[in-house]
Amino acid sequence: MKALVYHGPGRRSWEERPDPQLVDATDAIVDIDTVTICGTDLHILKGDVAAVTDGRVLGHEAVGTVRAVGAAVTTVRPGDRVLVSCVTACGRCRFCREGMYGQCLGGGGWILGHLIDGTQAEQVRVPFADTSLYLLPASVDDEAAVMLADILPTSYEVGAINGRVGPGDTVAVVGTGPIGLSAILGCKLFSPGHVIAIDLAESRLEAAKQFGADITINPATHDAVAEVRALTEGLGADVVIEAVGVPETFELCTSLVRRGGHVANIGVHGVPAALHLEDLWDRNVTITTGLVDTWSTPRLLRLVASGQLPAHRFVTHHFDLGQMMDAYTTFESAADTGAIKVVLHNSR
Amino acid sequence: MKALVYHGPGRRSWEERPDPQLVDATDAIVDIDTVTICGTDLHILKGDVAAVTDGRVLGHEAVGTVRAVGAAVTTVRPGDRVLVSCVTACGRCRFCREGMYGQCLGGGGWILGHLIDGTQAEQVRVPFADTSLYLLPASVDDEAAVMLADILPTSYEVGAINGRVGPGDTVAVVGTGPIGLSAILGCKLFSPGHVIAIDLAESRLEAAKQFGADITINPATHDAVAEVRALTEGLGADVVIEAVGVPETFELCTSLVRRGGHVANIGVHGVPAALHLEDLWDRNVTITTGLVDTWSTPRLLRLVASGQLPAHRFVTHHFDLGQMMDAYTTFESAADTGAIKVVLHNSR
Amino acid sequence: MKALVYHGPGRRSWEERPDPQLVDATDAIVDIDTVTICGTDLHILKGDVAAVTDGRVLGHEAVGTVRAVGAAVTTVRPGDRVLVSCVTACGRCRFCREGMYGQCLGGGGWILGHLIDGTQAEQVRVPFADTSLYLLPASVDDEAAVMLADILPTSYEVGAINGRVGPGDTVAVVGTGPIGLSAILGCKLFSPGHVIAIDLAESRLEAAKQFGADITINPATHDAVAEVRALTEGLGADVVIEAVGVPETFELCTSLVRRGGHVANIGVHGVPAALHLEDLWDRNVTITTGLVDTWSTPRLLRLVASGQLPAHRFVTHHFDLGQMMDAYTTFESAADTGAIKVVLHNSR
Amino acid sequence: MKALVYHGPGRRSWEERPDPQLVDATDAIVDIDTVTICGTDLHILKGDVAAVTDGRVLGHEAVGTVRAVGAAVTTVRPGDRVLVSCVTACGRCRFCREGMYGQCLGGGGWILGHLIDGTQAEQVRVPFADTSLYLLPASVDDEAAVMLADILPTSYEVGAINGRVGPGDTVAVVGTGPIGLSAILGCKLFSPGHVIAIDLAESRLEAAKQFGADITINPATHDAVAEVRALTEGLGADVVIEAVGVPETFELCTSLVRRGGHVANIGVHGVPAALHLEDLWDRNVTITTGLVDTWSTPRLLRLVASGQLPAHRFVTHHFDLGQMMDAYTTFESAADTGAIKVVLHNSR
Repeated sequence: MKALVYHGPGRRSWEERPDPQLVDATDAIVDIDTVTICGTDLHILKGDVAAVTDGRVLGHEAVGTVRAVGAAVTTVRPGDRVLVSCVTACGRCRFCREGMYGQCLGGGGWILGHLIDGTQAEQVRVPFADTSLYLLPASVDDEAAVMLADILPTSYEVGAINGRVGPGDTVAVVGTGPIGLSAILGCKLFSPGHVIAIDLAESRLEAAKQFGADITINPATHDAVAEVRALTEGLGADVVIEAVGVPETFELCTSLVRRGGHVANIGVHGVPAALHLEDLWDRNVTITTGLVDTWSTPRLLRLVASGQLPAHRFVTHHFDLGQMMDAYTTFESAADTGAIKVVLHNSR
Repeated sequence: MKALVYHGPGRRSWEERPDPQLVDATDAIVDIDTVTICGTDLHILKGDVAAVTDGRVLGHEAVGTVRAVGAAVTTVRPGDRVLVSCVTACGRCRFCREGMYGQCLGGGGWILGHLIDGTQAEQVRVPFADTSLYLLPASVDDEAAVMLADILPTSYEVGAINGRVGPGDTVAVVGTGPIGLSAILGCKLFSPGHVIAIDLAESRLEAAKQFGADITINPATHDAVAEVRALTEGLGADVVIEAVGVPETFELCTSLVRRGGHVANIGVHGVPAALHLEDLWDRNVTITTGLVDTWSTPRLLRLVASGQLPAHRFVTHHFDLGQMMDAYTTFESAADTGAIKVVLHNSR
Repeated sequence: MKALVYHGPGRRSWEERPDPQLVDATDAIVDIDTVTICGTDLHILKGDVAAVTDGRVLGHEAVGTVRAVGAAVTTVRPGDRVLVSCVTACGRCRFCREGMYGQCLGGGGWILGHLIDGTQAEQVRVPFADTSLYLLPASVDDEAAVMLADILPTSYEVGAINGRVGPGDTVAVVGTGPIGLSAILGCKLFSPGHVIAIDLAESRLEAAKQFGADITINPATHDAVAEVRALTEGLGADVVIEAVGVPETFELCTSLVRRGGHVANIGVHGVPAALHLEDLWDRNVTITTGLVDTWSTPRLLRLVASGQLPAHRFVTHHFDLGQMMDAYTTFESAADTGAIKVVLHNSR
Repeated sequence: MKALVYHGPGRRSWEERPDPQLVDATDAIVDIDTVTICGTDLHILKGDVAAVTDGRVLGHEAVGTVRAVGAAVTTVRPGDRVLVSCVTACGRCRFCREGMYGQCLGGGGWILGHLIDGTQAEQVRVPFADTSLYLLPASVDDEAAVMLADILPTSYEVGAINGRVGPGDTVAVVGTGPIGLSAILGCKLFSPGHVIAIDLAESRLEAAKQFGADITINPATHDAVAEVRALTEGLGADVVIEAVGVPETFELCTSLVRRGGHVANIGVHGVPAALHLEDLWDRNVTITTGLVDTWSTPRLLRLVASGQLPAHRFVTHHFDLGQMMDAYTTFESAADTGAIKVVLHNSR
């Protein structure tokens, strides 16, 4: 089969690889129909994720058709159309039993395109198929469904739910790349009073408006803290979501949040941030971090099916699976191409 | 009356002051029966709390007898024996209406011995008496009751409750001065499986055992992270409570907590700490800060009355109110005197 | 002044009454600008509410202008435009301190038009003004604001919040009179997947659609349990809201709810219902009851102000305050007049 | 092998049965070491549980040693000492993924000794072994461990947790048979201020004291509602636990609970109860039902291991496995024998 293979920092190729085979009784082999590229894949390609080694097939998001299943698989069958989630769950360990699948201790968690070969290929082996694949209804098309593999549940669970957004709240989202835009969608499900998008790029702020932000602030030209306070009787935002992953933005978040409010970190960080406890110690603030656990995937799937979650809105570019190298180029040049999510289809 | 007056960094005196008078219709004047000294008072005396100015009577914890009440006070009357809480609540603002009294926007919060004259005196004026004083049952003596003014609700709300301690959990308490010891008591109410006390002073670790810790670790000689992981199948503690207030201890806390666990900060911090988001971003960790809101005071009072919360255990030294200067000396020399809490009685 | 006075079952009159006077230091006198009639007022007029005695001025919902305040009132002043809430809160008792204002032990709770004279008059005395009145922004007009006095917070707190509605849930609302319609609005704030309205009157089902229900069932002609199960893979609704108040509808609710689901009772009941514990004991069901506590009023006010909660939609008929008797006639003949909420304005 | 077999109402025998065999790849065969009898087994023998048919081996609680495992089982191996839980979980269905294992839709739930052969035998086949068996540490002996199969997690989850017991609360437990006694232990983990045991049998009230109740009331001679109100300033209990399963006791529970309180039903009911909504509709009461989900089993196992949960206290009688018929006689004559739990050991 063909696959997108990582060969060390800065080196990727679309090349021939052996077809994956069933290894464990709980495995499934899935033929890839639709796949996308994540910002995390770009991090891997920069060499930022040490666990990813030369020769790894990348990708942790896909929609596909089951080709084969191991002897112990009972909930999916060959021919089923399924979502391949970014999180694989053994279903047996302490964390899986507590619904914290992203922290699986039994060989799951985020492993696709990370510790084992991933989805940017013609086929993928998915361990623990019964607890890692989701049957898709015909009413949800591939492009919408593939947004449920990572970006929608991540921003919903780690952003909106961890931040405890409620009706009438003022929510500030710092960083409006794909995950920040998705956080806006997730927060809007709870009818906040205001969603304030904060980003340095005007084009992203424009996108944020289309995703539902009613206020935008560019901190290059405006004092975000002052503007948020002006909107909130001097208190600050009820919920602040970090969707960038650098110290400056995290520190901005803790300046924006009101006493008693929540800072929900979604960003992937590479270095420490300063936590201004000299200001925060007496402010009743809650700060959360998290990897997606995908407990919300069935719920979000219902909302996509009913048209309440406009998953298509992310998709700016379409490619054939064989154009994988072009798709990467388009996605990594988002500032120029305006790419939010690029989607590749396997036109078998 | 006599009162302990702050005269700038390092300067305190027990001196004559005018008796306080009713100012607002919601005020009460309380004759002090029993009072204690808080670590925060020592911080003030070092000059660390800029809002406290020359001439301020210190103290925010007391038991007393109501002398007079304003026209609008309905729930306490002259002669009533009451707890004077460290937090004063207007009862009308947004935060008071949400039960977050410590963040009162209407003139309350922590004001006694801070923004207005406090309790280390023969009398004190208490604003918003109806929502800031608590009637005491005869079954709770003064020494136990005065621990409910600050230390017990603070450690319960900001430590045990924010940390979401549950039965069977492994709890690590970093710092076992008075507030850390109190956090041990608060956590024990939820039947944790282990309470691990961590402190550099052996005498404090010894006290921690008496307050209910079953494991003690001195990080001067032992690797706290390694020991906690060894106890928890390599995962770390379910709940970690910071009860010191310096960057090193806060950073230790985030190293001790397991994936999915809680770090509850009680310590009063003066400088930023490093938040190692490069390790924490994907670990589903929750970090909380807080000033006590005192919503738990009635509940804790019941537990002191029923003997389930051994409030007396803190009291190591007893003084007459007139020995205030000696009491301060004993309390600030805790390393030598072994003082945990010193209590002063007014033997009128 | 003129007021609507109850004179025993079936007897009401619009008659001259003495102007109310300040009694306690925490009172306010409010000039009524806009007022509405509640289904509960009709119950009172039938003689169903024994605590209401001959001579009582009815009404517990209004928008008005403060005329005078007692000496202890600090948050509103003469001339302020305010919402008069159906719940009055002493702000000092145990329940008020826990945010459960509807259960106030200190002389508050639902007292207006019940235990003391109410709002269907030219003036009203409001006890505990600081914790029972809400300042209104100019952006919210009277007709929208008066819906915040009872119906909107009641259906939000006792219906949507007690029922724990979440994104993608299937919600069934049994009974779509004014409070059931309001429950639909409240639930929609949390983006349920389906809102199923169930009522015997086709006109009400039609109204339910306009308020946001996507499915309607008339149990006179359809099997509600079977239809809800067909929609939910045989499981039943996640949340069921009782908004009628008779045994049959309550019992229908417990038949409609799925294992692990919630039944939130809003209906005012006069007789017991059968609780089918032989079916329910092992189904992990939660059943809640409640009087509104009005903790949500500020939050809902923000949503009305921002246009996210279409409070105007309830108002079907407009009257001058002097037409009180006609307004009652229209409201109590809702089946003929199509009245949902009638609103009266004082055109001074 | 030998097994206790149900042969229709009132008929049981200890007879020879074929050894169970592995059927599915996820099965385990467990040699029974220790087993107990549940009140539910007595219900079955009366013919009250229609799903149990002639020929069924009874029993849903055991400690044993794994004899064999299917090909897909990865977390237990032959020779492992395990707890056989009353709840079997497929680990894959919607409810299992939400941690609601008792409601498993994939072939699990309470099936042992109910829909398939159970544990009162020399061997048992356990489906879904990976998610239905628990490895036991050597520090927990069989008699303590077997109490974790049903009674301890049931009373903890369905009683203490559903009832939201907190420190200082007043808890009333109605019915102090084995499950009520276990509820007392579960509630005590949260340091309630009072645990009030209510039962008609003095011997059970005596047992309740030994399990930690500080107050006992016999409703045959005392007015339980009046006594509980006298203890609680007229309000009623914060939490009331139903542990009998008849209308009278359930209705007593709703009379005992305070405004804003919780009624947690554990009792197994056969007929409807009256729900006095005419009293309850405005009292902010929460009523819960439930089958155990066993999410708490690992947590409770830690507390048994650390000595914080005195599981042995239930065991009043010991038998050899071959004395099964005698054990049943002793258990069903509890009023005479004083039996709380009888335990049978297989002395191979």
